[in-house]
This record gives sequence, C-alpha cells and structure tokens, in this order.
Amino acid sequence: MKLHEIGEFELIDRIKQIVAGASDDLVLGIDDDAAVLKSPREKLTLLTTDTLIQDVHFDLSYMSPYEVGWRAMAANLSDIAAMGGQPRYAVVSIAAPPVFEVESILNLYRGMKTLGDEFQTLIIGGDATRSPERLFLSLAVIGDVEENKLALRSAAQVGDAIFVTGSLGGAQAGLKILQSQDLQLKNNFVLSVKRHLTPMPRVKEARFLVEHFPIHAMIDVSDGLASEIQHICRQSEVGALILAERVPLDSETKEAAKLFGEEALDYALTGGEDFELLFTAPQEIAKELQAAFHKQFGFEGTQIGEIKDLASGVNLQHSPHRLTNLVARGFDHFRR
Amino acid sequence: MKLHEIGEFELIDRIKQIVAGASDDLVLGIDDDAAVLKSPREKLTLLTTDTLIQDVHFDLSYMSPYEVGWRAMAANLSDIAAMGGQPRYAVVSIAAPPVFEVESILNLYRGMKTLGDEFQTLIIGGDATRSPERLFLSLAVIGDVEENKLALRSAAQVGDAIFVTGSLGGAQAGLKILQSQDLQLKNNFVLSVKRHLTPMPRVKEARFLVEHFPIHAMIDVSDGLASEIQHICRQSEVGALILAERVPLDSETKEAAKLFGEEALDYALTGGEDFELLFTAPQEIAKELQAAFHKQFGFEGTQIGEIKDLASGVNLQHSPHRLTNLVARGFDHFRR
Repeated sequence: MKLHEIGEFELIDRIKQIVAGASDDLVLGIDDDAAVLKSPREKLTLLTTDTLIQDVHFDLSYMSPYEVGWRAMAANLSDIAAMGGQPRYAVVSIAAPPVFEVESILNLYRGMKTLGDEFQTLIIGGDATRSPERLFLSLAVIGDVEENKLALRSAAQVGDAIFVTGSLGGAQAGLKILQSQDLQLKNNFVLSVKRHLTPMPRVKEARFLVEHFPIHAMIDVSDGLASEIQHICRQSEVGALILAERVPLDSETKEAAKLFGEEALDYALTGGEDFELLFTAPQEIAKELQAAFHKQFGFEGTQIGEIKDLASGVNLQHSPHRLTNLVARGFDHFRR
Repeated sequence: MKLHEIGEFELIDRIKQIVAGASDDLVLGIDDDAAVLKSPREKLTLLTTDTLIQDVHFDLSYMSPYEVGWRAMAANLSDIAAMGGQPRYAVVSIAAPPVFEVESILNLYRGMKTLGDEFQTLIIGGDATRSPERLFLSLAVIGDVEENKLALRSAAQVGDAIFVTGSLGGAQAGLKILQSQDLQLKNNFVLSVKRHLTPMPRVKEARFLVEHFPIHAMIDVSDGLASEIQHICRQSEVGALILAERVPLDSETKEAAKLFGEEALDYALTGGEDFELLFTAPQEIAKELQAAFHKQFGFEGTQIGEIKDLASGVNLQHSPHRLTNLVARGFDHFRR
C-alpha cells in the first residue's frame, strides 16, 4: 500500500494509533492546530529541533525506516539531555514521496515511539506532506529542567576536569561497516552497527549527573569530540587539553578502524553521532563522580582532560612530547 | 557567495545576527543544544510545527526566499492563533543545497524575522543542514494561552453561528496569477498576489475574539473552507450548514476566477492558504461580535452559516432550492 492510495488523513489516523499515549501535563495532542500542554511550574522549558534527510543523514539501503525514526528521536532527546533536562513531548514534520509504502512510514513512527517511550517522551503533533523524491524527517522536542540543574555549553571553568560518557567513535565504525555492504562484517561488528542504527541518548545519565554533581558545561557528541570541545571552549572562553590515550574507544571500534586502515581516535574526534555526553566539573570531585557514575550505570564516565585558560588554546596531547592544536574537524554540512 | 563557501558555522553566525532579539522569558537562544525559556505561569503551552518544501509548497521562480520565510512563519503563527494563543518562540530547521546562495538563505531568515517581529515571536534556535537538491524549511512554534481562552476544533455546539474573518479564496487567486507568469496580470492583481506571497496570520484578531467573546470552536483556513469546516464538525461531532452567498469573496478573487473560467467560490472552498480564522460562537452574540470585530479591525468577521446536529451532515446551501453535501475537497498532500 502506497501513501497516495490512502491519502493524508487516513495516514494521520494510523499514525495517531501508533503514537497514542497519555501524560499528566498533556491537555491535547494530535487533532488540533497545535498541541496543548500544562506549563511546568518552577522549571525552565527547553526547545530543540533536529532534521534527518534521506541520502544526507541516512541511506535506506542499510537503514530501516524504524531505525531512521529511532535515530531522529535519539538526536533530539540527546539535545535535551545535554542541557540536563528531561524530554517530554515531540512534534514531527514528515515529508515523503507519494509512492512511499504506508507501512514504512508507520514503522518510522514506531521507531520514534519506542525510543520516546523509553524516556517518557510522547509524540503529540506534527505535519505530514509530500516530498518530490526524498524522505525528510524533522522533530522538535520540548523538555524541562530545574533552573539550578541547567547545564550550558558556556559554563566550563579553568581547572575543570573534562569527562565523556561511554566510548566514542563507535557510531562512525558502525557507519563504515554498514557502508561496506559486507554481511559478514555486519555480523562481526554488532555493537558498532547498533550504535549507528539505534543509538541510545544519555538522558538518564545526564539527569543523574546534574542531580548529584555540580556539572559545569555539558554538550552531546553529535559531530565528533573535536568539534564539541571547541563549542564548549568557544562559548566558555577557555582552552582545553585532551589526552589522546584517555579518549575511550571500545574494542570493536579499534578493530574496525584497523580493518579500514584508519585511526580509531580519528573516528572519535571527527566521527558521527555517538550521542555521548561531554561535560566538565570541578577537578576535586572527579574521582567521586566517576565512581558514582560507574556504580549507577555499570559503565564509565571517563576523565579525558582538563579545561585550561583561553590563551592555552584547545590541544590534544598525543604523547608526552607531542601536542597538537585540536582544530575543529567535525562534520560541516555544507562543505562536504 | 554559495553556502559551501562559508560553511555551516559561519552561516549560523550570520543567521544569529539577523534573528537576534530579547524577551523577558528567553533565558538562552541559539548557542546551545536547546533553547531555554521561562515557563509561562498560569497558562497552557502550545506547540505546533509546519513545513514548506520547494516545488511542493513554493516555487522559487515566482517566490523570493524572503517570501518563503514569511509564509513558513505565517503558517505556524496561524496555527497558534487558531488555538486562541499568543505565539512566542520559533525554532527553524532548514536544509539547502550547498550551491545555494548565502544571501538567499539570509533573506529567508529576514522574511521569518520580519513577520515574527510583527507578532512578538522570536527565532531562538534551529538546525541547518545540507539537502541534495531542494530547499526544505520546517518551523516549530511555541506559544501560550489562558486555559479559559483556549479555542479547540472540538468545541462547536449545535446552534452556534459560524464565522470567518476577512475573505476567502484570495490566496488561490494569487497563486493562479503567479503561475500564469503574466507580468501584466501580476500588476493588476496586487492584493491576491500579496495574499499568496506574504499572508498575514490572524494572531491579533484571534486574541481579540477569545478575549472578548465566548468563542467555541476555532481553526485556521489553510486547506480551504470545505476541509476546515469538516475538521470542526468531525471533532465536535456536529453538522453544519454553510450559505454559499455569505462566503466572503473579494473583488479581485472574483475577477481572477472569471479570468480563468473558474468559480471564485471553489477557490474559497478548496483553495490554498488564506490563513483566515473559521470559528463558531453562540448565535445570540453574532451581531455584537460582528460589530465589535469590524470596529476593532476595520474589516468583517462574517457569519457564513450555522452548526447543525450530527445527523444533518455538512452541507452547502447554494440557493433556496439547492443544497449539496460539502465533502472535504481540501488539499490532500499525497493524493495529488
């Protein structure tokens, strides 16, 4: 069954069945010109948007519509998490060719819904329209955060320890594996592939951090570590020193990089969307924070460096005698 | 200068200069993972999203990027207005081909900003990315409304008078004129053309109505009157009778329809985005409402019919002896 066979309104009815859900603050979801919410008292409202475009951000030859939906939701939830916030509601703008399979569109909503449910985030509205040839998916997500738990990019202080959750580069390794179209490889790198297709935004980890520790700056890693640390430094007007040997790389990522004759560290620095948290906090609490984080989640929040003064620049220490300036080498959407 | 020559981050810096603005409730705009707002106390939050795609919703051969931006903002503000709400903030997702002119993108933001300013709505964040060939513009707008002023599609009551602001069909007439590529025609139908290119959402009118009158149901006319009255009737579980002779058509619209050998009424029923308000209120206050509306705005809020019971269906009275069932004839994005 193709989209043009059921039309816009039947599609919306079917989407409504998939995304149905209730929440205390939701007055009205899909069914009117705008969704209606009770405003969170004593909290700040967060609003973010993120878009995925077929053949730019995903390729349907190795990614299912369900995974596309999941990833789009992940990117937006990750942005709310990076502020220290709890995501609440999403509105979805979708554009698809009329010959697109209805079931594919519904699977895309199932992917968004499944991940949204994991983090108490409901889809409450949106817009569905025709696209000449490619699938476009744009989400806006609203969330909230207590004023004293808000974690800004601009709040890093000289002397802060720099941490990253989990490991980096895995999503890039997974992308490489998928692009190789090698089924054997895909089976041997299940974790990396999963990191690319169905990434887990660090919503719970971010909430835990801001609830228990004086987190200074925080950002999610969606364009590679090199680019994200530059964002923090530019907006906090500080420098940073990252220790290459501390950057957490999992074994699959290292193995995949070796296979492709590349450096796993480069995957971490410039690779795609790991959706880990990069954050800073006072050096005095570094040990306590790492221990509590590990106890809570069973994986690491690793210290990878330190915030320096602005004049020091943003540098990567490769070895005791080799220091390089860490220029932003993240993804630029218009330059490639 | 093309987008790929300046890159994503330089583009964002330039956009920031255009959309800059301050507001009491805005804690942080562009510059972080999400925008941060103080939550409106004692009010409901409204959230809507609407997307424009090149060659589906607009054609750059007769629409400037500034006008595209304007229209995208208008569509979203109109949705907030239709709930009785005051729009506050917008986030913008844009996707454009790397060869696109930087100045065109900036003009698109200037269009959004100009209309947003008219209604105290700030652009506070977004996402900019590459698109393979077409321009894609998706906005999400947040607004608020007092709980007792919220106007839902589902609130129409049997016996209500049905009103529409301004006149209908003008945007469709303007589109026809523009598509004709006839410069002479364009000069002779300035108002219609303007209605298509730079429509004015009825934000102030909607606020006036909900502040002064017990408005029951309200919706904005973005897919033609036939489709919008069906939305109200379906969600309110009522019927309606629309009187054809009462449907307000301006003289340019009538003249344009004649020129193209079509019916001006059809432009109103099935034509594009007039962004007028369609609303219902108790019949007893119809005269008072119309007088107050005209006094305030200098143009009409016209009664075009009456809400009937569900069994009566949704009908159009052409003449005393001719009644037809008003099937939804609005735009279906996937069927054409």
